[in-house]
Amino acid sequence: MTEPSHFLLDERLVSDCIFIKRIGRIQILLFNNSLLPWFILVPETDVKELYLLDAELRKNLLALQDDFSRFIMEKFTCDKLNIAAIGNIVSQMHIHIVGRYKDDYAWPGVVWGVSKSKPYEEKEVVNIKNDLFSYFELLSIKND
Amino acid sequence: MTEPSHFLLDERLVSDCIFIKRIGRIQILLFNNSLLPWFILVPETDVKELYLLDAELRKNLLALQDDFSRFIMEKFTCDKLNIAAIGNIVSQMHIHIVGRYKDDYAWPGVVWGVSKSKPYEEKEVVNIKNDLFSYFELLSIKND
Repeated sequence: MTEPSHFLLDERLVSDCIFIKRIGRIQILLFNNSLLPWFILVPETDVKELYLLDAELRKNLLALQDDFSRFIMEKFTCDKLNIAAIGNIVSQMHIHIVGRYKDDYAWPGVVWGVSKSKPYEEKEVVNIKNDLFSYFELLSIKND
Repeated sequence: MTEPSHFLLDERLVSDCIFIKRIGRIQILLFNNSLLPWFILVPETDVKELYLLDAELRKNLLALQDDFSRFIMEKFTCDKLNIAAIGNIVSQMHIHIVGRYKDDYAWPGVVWGVSKSKPYEEKEVVNIKNDLFSYFELLSIKND
């Protein structure tokens, strides 16, 4: 059972992302750019660096990072994943997991600092959520 | 005891980096840009994505990532770490661990894709290696 959260998400993350779900002490966000499958995981913590995370949260974050990596590669058939903890602008810890294509708008460069973007339509977000929830339901069945 | 390696480091990594040491199945490189403390960890594997790494190598890679994170923050008193697995240009798996300063040449942007660079002088590399080896010796004593 997930405890209620008193954690306040950074305003920039709120405005740039679509909230998907909270699993344990980790918030799952979809970056509002339909040009790429781009998820952001936000562990509910005040520490700014991965190596300072408490062991349990770190373990759960990594497991979720792997689940999302697999989900992105399988559902969006990407060519590469870009995974990063940056935090120069938004210091609240967050992990980017971005599916990349060899013909996407920033390839072979990174996506950070490139402003090109296309907001999702509501229907697209519903589809991604459905895919994601089916995928995670399948995972939890597999893990039983 | 580390086994001998038959692993071939990507040519681009060879030309851009200074080889520091091999620990287990992980090669430690110093990116040849003295403007920032920038290390690259290369697990000796053919897989391209973190979630596909075998469990032992993944565990060792993460432990080393944490050691380098701590080392960079303590020795170079950086403001932030940027940690990333990208691999769009060099597909051989490698993890960037970059110490950032609020007044460095790319702040608050990312360093990838920014060509500004200043190669190390030999003496600087010797100093970094000495610091690093002292630090890791201390760590291994602590872990005993």
